[in-house]
Amino acid sequence: MALPTPLTGVVPPVCTPLDPRGEVDTGSLGRLVEHLVTGGVHGLFALGSTSEVAYLTDAQRATALEAVLKAADGRVPVLAGVIDTTTARVLDHARTAQALGADALVATAPFYTRTHPKEIAGHFRAIRAAVDLPLFAYDIPVAVHSKLPGALVRELAEDGTLAGLKDSSGDEGGLRRLLVELGGRDGRRIGPAPDFAVLTGSELTVDAALLAGADGVVPGIGNVDPAAYVRLYDACRAGDWAGAAAEQERLVALFGMVDAGPEAEMGRSSSALGSFKAALHLLGVIGHPATAAPQLPLGPESVAEVARHLTAAGLEPVR
Amino acid sequence: MALPTPLTGVVPPVCTPLDPRGEVDTGSLGRLVEHLVTGGVHGLFALGSTSEVAYLTDAQRATALEAVLKAADGRVPVLAGVIDTTTARVLDHARTAQALGADALVATAPFYTRTHPKEIAGHFRAIRAAVDLPLFAYDIPVAVHSKLPGALVRELAEDGTLAGLKDSSGDEGGLRRLLVELGGRDGRRIGPAPDFAVLTGSELTVDAALLAGADGVVPGIGNVDPAAYVRLYDACRAGDWAGAAAEQERLVALFGMVDAGPEAEMGRSSSALGSFKAALHLLGVIGHPATAAPQLPLGPESVAEVARHLTAAGLEPVR
Amino acid sequence: MALPTPLTGVVPPVCTPLDPRGEVDTGSLGRLVEHLVTGGVHGLFALGSTSEVAYLTDAQRATALEAVLKAADGRVPVLAGVIDTTTARVLDHARTAQALGADALVATAPFYTRTHPKEIAGHFRAIRAAVDLPLFAYDIPVAVHSKLPGALVRELAEDGTLAGLKDSSGDEGGLRRLLVELGGRDGRRIGPAPDFAVLTGSELTVDAALLAGADGVVPGIGNVDPAAYVRLYDACRAGDWAGAAAEQERLVALFGMVDAGPEAEMGRSSSALGSFKAALHLLGVIGHPATAAPQLPLGPESVAEVARHLTAAGLEPVR
Amino acid sequence: MALPTPLTGVVPPVCTPLDPRGEVDTGSLGRLVEHLVTGGVHGLFALGSTSEVAYLTDAQRATALEAVLKAADGRVPVLAGVIDTTTARVLDHARTAQALGADALVATAPFYTRTHPKEIAGHFRAIRAAVDLPLFAYDIPVAVHSKLPGALVRELAEDGTLAGLKDSSGDEGGLRRLLVELGGRDGRRIGPAPDFAVLTGSELTVDAALLAGADGVVPGIGNVDPAAYVRLYDACRAGDWAGAAAEQERLVALFGMVDAGPEAEMGRSSSALGSFKAALHLLGVIGHPATAAPQLPLGPESVAEVARHLTAAGLEPVR
Repeated sequence: MALPTPLTGVVPPVCTPLDPRGEVDTGSLGRLVEHLVTGGVHGLFALGSTSEVAYLTDAQRATALEAVLKAADGRVPVLAGVIDTTTARVLDHARTAQALGADALVATAPFYTRTHPKEIAGHFRAIRAAVDLPLFAYDIPVAVHSKLPGALVRELAEDGTLAGLKDSSGDEGGLRRLLVELGGRDGRRIGPAPDFAVLTGSELTVDAALLAGADGVVPGIGNVDPAAYVRLYDACRAGDWAGAAAEQERLVALFGMVDAGPEAEMGRSSSALGSFKAALHLLGVIGHPATAAPQLPLGPESVAEVARHLTAAGLEPVR
Repeated sequence: MALPTPLTGVVPPVCTPLDPRGEVDTGSLGRLVEHLVTGGVHGLFALGSTSEVAYLTDAQRATALEAVLKAADGRVPVLAGVIDTTTARVLDHARTAQALGADALVATAPFYTRTHPKEIAGHFRAIRAAVDLPLFAYDIPVAVHSKLPGALVRELAEDGTLAGLKDSSGDEGGLRRLLVELGGRDGRRIGPAPDFAVLTGSELTVDAALLAGADGVVPGIGNVDPAAYVRLYDACRAGDWAGAAAEQERLVALFGMVDAGPEAEMGRSSSALGSFKAALHLLGVIGHPATAAPQLPLGPESVAEVARHLTAAGLEPVR
Repeated sequence: MALPTPLTGVVPPVCTPLDPRGEVDTGSLGRLVEHLVTGGVHGLFALGSTSEVAYLTDAQRATALEAVLKAADGRVPVLAGVIDTTTARVLDHARTAQALGADALVATAPFYTRTHPKEIAGHFRAIRAAVDLPLFAYDIPVAVHSKLPGALVRELAEDGTLAGLKDSSGDEGGLRRLLVELGGRDGRRIGPAPDFAVLTGSELTVDAALLAGADGVVPGIGNVDPAAYVRLYDACRAGDWAGAAAEQERLVALFGMVDAGPEAEMGRSSSALGSFKAALHLLGVIGHPATAAPQLPLGPESVAEVARHLTAAGLEPVR
Repeated sequence: MALPTPLTGVVPPVCTPLDPRGEVDTGSLGRLVEHLVTGGVHGLFALGSTSEVAYLTDAQRATALEAVLKAADGRVPVLAGVIDTTTARVLDHARTAQALGADALVATAPFYTRTHPKEIAGHFRAIRAAVDLPLFAYDIPVAVHSKLPGALVRELAEDGTLAGLKDSSGDEGGLRRLLVELGGRDGRRIGPAPDFAVLTGSELTVDAALLAGADGVVPGIGNVDPAAYVRLYDACRAGDWAGAAAEQERLVALFGMVDAGPEAEMGRSSSALGSFKAALHLLGVIGHPATAAPQLPLGPESVAEVARHLTAAGLEPVR
């Protein structure tokens, strides 16, 4: 389907359910997509960090993207992450995503290697030139260890290379500067890149980002409670900022589940991904809570902690 | 004067004007305090990072604090930064600040040395025990290279060690979690630390922080346009979030002056401090734009750039 | 061929020559391998960071590894890098490398995702269990942004998971502690992991590493002057430390070529890889100096600077 | 006394013994200096990081420096650390050190603030211009969070600003490049800065640094076993590299005491400083093992672990 310009609303990064052998559980993935679409989300981001894209083989990535596209069935646009170290490898993923029918691509700056803004600009331009799909830049320094400079994003927005930004940098001041420079608020962007979409990945401050003029949000914990993010988005769009803040606070409390895994024993990513999947399993959306190797699984106490967070948020576990 | 509990509102970190020899220009400092107090600010933070505290000798620190206290003259409370590497050195500054009449102390985690949360907790407790003044924790990882863990801040808030937090960490998600855990919004904190003040140092997202439940802001560029931050604060308190966002956007544009200094030639701090002082000089508030050694001064082109930002914000240079 | 236990000597990370379209130039790669083997090296490391592994598609990786194996023709062992973000992706590369005939595998800690020592240990154990080839851990924090803890390396050495370590961490103090704990010097390792090989990637301090008990070196600039690293290694083994230091100093001066690229214009990796390839092109070993996208190429001045370094080291350009 | 040019040999950073109230124990400090001088060291570095300089008030710093100078009594030169955030504050310390009779000054790059190489150069030049004592640059990124660029050090060496470098950066490759560029080895420096001294703070790889052409070492654990570092230095100077490596290995094993403190409970600095002081106390050199607030003390198990390391190294505890 054609991507709305700009893309707005709630676009969760879709978790990739796995079976106990570590293979993509397409049945569960279909149910998860249904859970999200019926929750009212405005788009889906397949193969993002929360999708464990960095843990999936090329074959598994294709399987997951195909399953998301099939389940979405044109009801909402599907963005496909094409996350890899450098240009040629990203292009391999981009061509696959295009062939499978993705509506847009999402790429990070190069990683593993040390890079430079001029090279990052060339990277995005080469992807845009090679594969004719709207391209989103994914700013995620915690993963790629470089930050997209605001001036670079503006340049690539204004020359049409980028259709949007998914900002997971956590640099809210820098994002505010970018939004002011891009011009306009509340979907009324008026500068030289009127269709450029700014989506925040900072899922704990969505009210703030929308107040500042962001177009949407890509919330990892939106997998667990998509309807709440839709309510939050709608409240912001209606100018009900107190209502939005209250909904955000409920989601902040729910997000506390990511501390479930003992930090002394597992990586921070593993703890967050494990708790999201445990929650989806407890809610009966997916068949298994497994995360990909080498992530350690949550133990029983951690799962109980996740359950407590669900119950406190009024999301009753069915297991 | 007694510190309000909790401390709320606009509390700018007061720049320390210097004369061409590098000594504290107390006349200019008095005028700056008048500029701030007549701008409507609710408190003053002397000897903060924006005050170039790290550049001032002990004698200069005392001179600056004394001048701020004298000019404030009890109209607003004065918080004194006691910034130094470790406990014993901080205590020296704290005793001086108390003797001079400061209303509260602001201390960072230890720096230069590598430290640990348990040691940081001991540091704040030792300061609170030795000098009987309300104590604010100053979370500024860009300077001290450690982040105050949320759990540590809560513990020190609940046991009465800390009267508040000045959060310059830029971690807005972490701040939101802390605010939710502390309980309540809009000055109605209801948890176990009802008088604990959360002030943000993120001057580009103040509307967002106040929407999230922060009590106030410590804006560096508030030196230049204090009245605008007061208007922004008042709009937030009145629930006029669209008006607040518009005022914030004007301040974001004004803040663009910090890019005036060529990054290839000077430190990022120097560029920001130099532009604030250049602006205050252009506005006729202070007598000289000098910053302390070894910071390089802004060149004429950079000063012209600062002037352009002032004019664009409706603050007409008088020089 | 069977890998010597422990692996010792000079094992350069083989550059991957590209043609102007960005495809692997197998003819040049064959000549480069001949240049290295006739230079006296003791092994070859294909698909390492210096091989631009992060820039090559899976198909290109296979082409490059196949060409190295064919050209080496059993004269020296070939280690294959299996560099990817996490376990399942690494296993795909490992199986390909085994099928092509590699003599050993070289894997890093997971990257892109945040990880934990327990998960890193599981990662290496899973690779070792799935593919029956000697496995080397590649400690390269500048690329993967975590450091392999010494205790972890020891544990995996002693339980037989790892056949060796390629240490590109730059932490020479940590390496020394590891070597002392592993026991022995000068190839006479006597502890619980007598066949464990420690190879340093710190190509500017090889004399020091061998004095400390390392078994060999993986020098990027060894592509340009392999015979010099062999002389350096031989001098160390003969106890001629002054001679070794003199040879090392000559190589340090040659290494100055990596500054040829203007740092303001390109990434640090690009500058180093570009200068190595420019040198190999100037020496007539490879047909084109191209590096992979999105790296910027060296300009003419930078190439002239590379030529000056070659001449100063007595390596006369033929172009 | 006049400083040798260049300064060479073993120059330990002198621990500052404290009494149980946290005050400088000048009696113990005198005994420690005697322990070092009779151990054969070639100089003393008072008020360095290992001296807990960041924990001492100005008055305590003066007391400690005075005590070291008195105990040294002209037998070896005394370098004084003048560690503080920026120029004016460092100058205060430098003038005190000069008045007390220090033979040279040791200063870091500015810290707490963000800085720039041009500003760092100005910082060292201002110190050198204001106080007429030989000036050493102290490169310690782990504390000040910037690395002195090699080109900057060369520039300041060649123009006479700096008398030497104390390199605690851990960047041995960068140090090697600097040594090659400065020219010469084994005390026969022949370039434009023939009297410039390069001292390494990397106490676990001293044999390597001296092989590379460094002039001396500033070893923290040299407080515990100064004679061993003198033997190591002498072996290097005599070209007995195998003997040097063996002595270094013994010291590496002894250094294992720094792991005595549980990392989960205290800062890394605290653990190292605590173990050095515990060792000096066990050996009967100093009266109390206390470290300065807010460092946590070593517990009994950790002290027992320190004792085990001493015994294993043939240094018998007397308590």
